[in-house]
Amino acid sequence: MNAKPERNRAKVDARKRLQARMKKTTFPLSQVYRLLEPGPVVMVTTVREGRANIMTMSWHTMMEFEPPLVGCVISNRNHSFEILKATRECVINIPTVELAETVVGCGNTSGQRVDKFKAFRLTPVPAACVKAPLIAECHANLECKVIDGKLAAKYNFFVLEVVKAWIDPARKHPRTIHHQGEGVFMVAGRTIHLPSPITSRLAK
Amino acid sequence: MNAKPERNRAKVDARKRLQARMKKTTFPLSQVYRLLEPGPVVMVTTVREGRANIMTMSWHTMMEFEPPLVGCVISNRNHSFEILKATRECVINIPTVELAETVVGCGNTSGQRVDKFKAFRLTPVPAACVKAPLIAECHANLECKVIDGKLAAKYNFFVLEVVKAWIDPARKHPRTIHHQGEGVFMVAGRTIHLPSPITSRLAK
Repeated sequence: MNAKPERNRAKVDARKRLQARMKKTTFPLSQVYRLLEPGPVVMVTTVREGRANIMTMSWHTMMEFEPPLVGCVISNRNHSFEILKATRECVINIPTVELAETVVGCGNTSGQRVDKFKAFRLTPVPAACVKAPLIAECHANLECKVIDGKLAAKYNFFVLEVVKAWIDPARKHPRTIHHQGEGVFMVAGRTIHLPSPITSRLAK
Repeated sequence: MNAKPERNRAKVDARKRLQARMKKTTFPLSQVYRLLEPGPVVMVTTVREGRANIMTMSWHTMMEFEPPLVGCVISNRNHSFEILKATRECVINIPTVELAETVVGCGNTSGQRVDKFKAFRLTPVPAACVKAPLIAECHANLECKVIDGKLAAKYNFFVLEVVKAWIDPARKHPRTIHHQGEGVFMVAGRTIHLPSPITSRLAK
């Protein structure tokens, strides 16, 4: 009897156990824009030859609702640029203010020399659809595949498709952080709801 | 004697007087990323054949520090898409929470039928380098030119260069608003400063 299917099943079970321990649920792809549109600093994870890396990123934008497309700039001076170009996979992890020091630390070190998961005591969790790991400590995780790298040479710009999204259902008001340059971050404040009374009076 | 230079001078003087009344100062181009990186909702103004339009936008990202490049998605279902494609100029105006209802109203009406400056009582001020007007009520204004429209057909994506930036120096902590979908906006909260003690301990 071939032991390979058994080993594969055991591997899948172990991955699912780790994902379950993370206590996150699947988040609908059609709602992903609600996480990225407000402009939070994110942590991008990649992996090559079994070595995972993390980089801090603020230059990203939604490009389509569904399937959710995300455009982002990853400088070719970053270790992650070459890994993303080669593997065409990553995870966008969204941290909250509790992780602010870690976010800055990850942004100011290079994965060429430092194992950032170890250095910053972050927990890698296997993703469902890509090889790059999720960061358990982040409140949401978006598994992504590069679908267009045509602007990578000129602008370091990649178009990603989010293929799977995770969210921590226990975090009702995650306080994301928003970079304002030179070590200053805005912390997400109160929310307001605008049913738009003006709109209803004006024809489209 | 040709009256044209006189008329031109009078026009320039009138424009400068209006700009002065707006009480904004020039903002260094190298610092523009600090305004857009946190992900505020913005209002994009365009003009064609003397008719100015305004649209609300959240899908934008910085792409380069200097000259500042901004990538943005403007749907081809918007009236502004065709104007931007034709004129290759616009202004990105950054509103604060006081304008929240106006922002939503502009986002839910079409410039094809409504003069939004009139409908929402906004003040157009002549820009310095582009024909599209600045919105006086916004705390910052970025005059932009389209430098790359290659991804417009596929993704409605434009690369803009900011050629001139204005800021209201009296507004120390502008409360920008950040769209979270379905009429919910996060209002910019407190700021934190992270000199990054972790970073200094780790080699780059």
